Amino acid sequence: MAEFDDYINLNKIDMNLKELLTEMKNISEVIVDLAYAALMFDSEEIAQEVSDLEDEMDNLKYAIRIKAMMAARTKEDAKLLSGLLQIANAAENIANAAADMVKLQEFPLEQRPFLSFILKESDEKIRMTQLSADSDMVNHTIGELGIESGTGMRIIAIKGRQGWIYDPEPEIKLRTNDSLIVRGTEDGFRELCKYTSGKEAWDPEEAAIHG
Amino acid sequence: MAEFDDYINLNKIDMNLKELLTEMKNISEVIVDLAYAALMFDSEEIAQEVSDLEDEMDNLKYAIRIKAMMAARTKEDAKLLSGLLQIANAAENIANAAADMVKLQEFPLEQRPFLSFILKESDEKIRMTQLSADSDMVNHTIGELGIESGTGMRIIAIKGRQGWIYDPEPEIKLRTNDSLIVRGTEDGFRELCKYTSGKEAWDPEEAAIHG
Repeated sequence: MAEFDDYINLNKIDMNLKELLTEMKNISEVIVDLAYAALMFDSEEIAQEVSDLEDEMDNLKYAIRIKAMMAARTKEDAKLLSGLLQIANAAENIANAAADMVKLQEFPLEQRPFLSFILKESDEKIRMTQLSADSDMVNHTIGELGIESGTGMRIIAIKGRQGWIYDPEPEIKLRTNDSLIVRGTEDGFRELCKYTSGKEAWDPEEAAIHG
Repeated sequence: MAEFDDYINLNKIDMNLKELLTEMKNISEVIVDLAYAALMFDSEEIAQEVSDLEDEMDNLKYAIRIKAMMAARTKEDAKLLSGLLQIANAAENIANAAADMVKLQEFPLEQRPFLSFILKESDEKIRMTQLSADSDMVNHTIGELGIESGTGMRIIAIKGRQGWIYDPEPEIKLRTNDSLIVRGTEDGFRELCKYTSGKEAWDPEEAAIHG
């Protein structure tokens, strides 16, 4: 089986069932937002990440299946674990659908001119902003800044020098030129951009009053 | 075709392509959150709504297909519109996966005791709170209250006397006993509950400072 194993990420097998399911759940939630974002911003890069996350899902599903089989010692165990595999299956199907969506990027641009327009028009929620060197958000963590409670904008993903971070933890530090993909209201976004551009000093309390 | 038409919602055909795609997109985003919420709260009611939304998706997909065919006058049109149908397809597949997930609710509870525990444990984000008669949020619109910018909690759905509202607009007024399904940080949720329970007076500015 050595040849087959080359194709999968064996490290995943070291995670426990709960961790595996958590990761699949998180990916299935973020991948839908990212797929729409890829189409809206006509971004090959985001589309590539969607497709990488889909591959990741395949690894996770293989790992969770192996783990579940190893964990089942009785028929009762097996019944319980089959429910878990059903969720894992559904999460993978969501990822597959998201990956299908971004395959549109492969078509020449002239064959899909109004898609990004329609999606941008129709969506009041997903937007992108880049962090200016002048912004005093630079070198602070998301947690310190309290962006979500200050502006109501949730950060779906960050693209920085190191690559992409999805569903970032509060400990993640923002850097100059980071691109933030965010979800929220139009007012919240306008507010946020004042700070990411460096036009105004970041003050979460202030942001909430004007937001 | 009259018999066949009885099974679909013909009103959907009156919407334009953009409206149809928007509605499919919105449902595909909210249905994933709702499916996980149904499992987490072991709620048959939320599961039922997921399955109703899946039916709605079928109607929308039929309508968008009809509309696209009627709109295509040239081969170029048809190429453009096929991209739109590909997105609609993917959105429907997401809804199908979400509906598969909640089918677990049909199993007896003893066959799925640790699923809701695992999902609740693993998820820091989706929670439910009910509006007390004492809360001064009662009879105000979501827009007036500025819940998202005040606490960072996004309202995914509201269950009230009239049934469910998904992805509610700012004009929606909150009523006593409404259940809010919300997504956000643990701190934001704790903050929000002070106001929904009526223990503290709602003040968005105040909420942001303590949040």
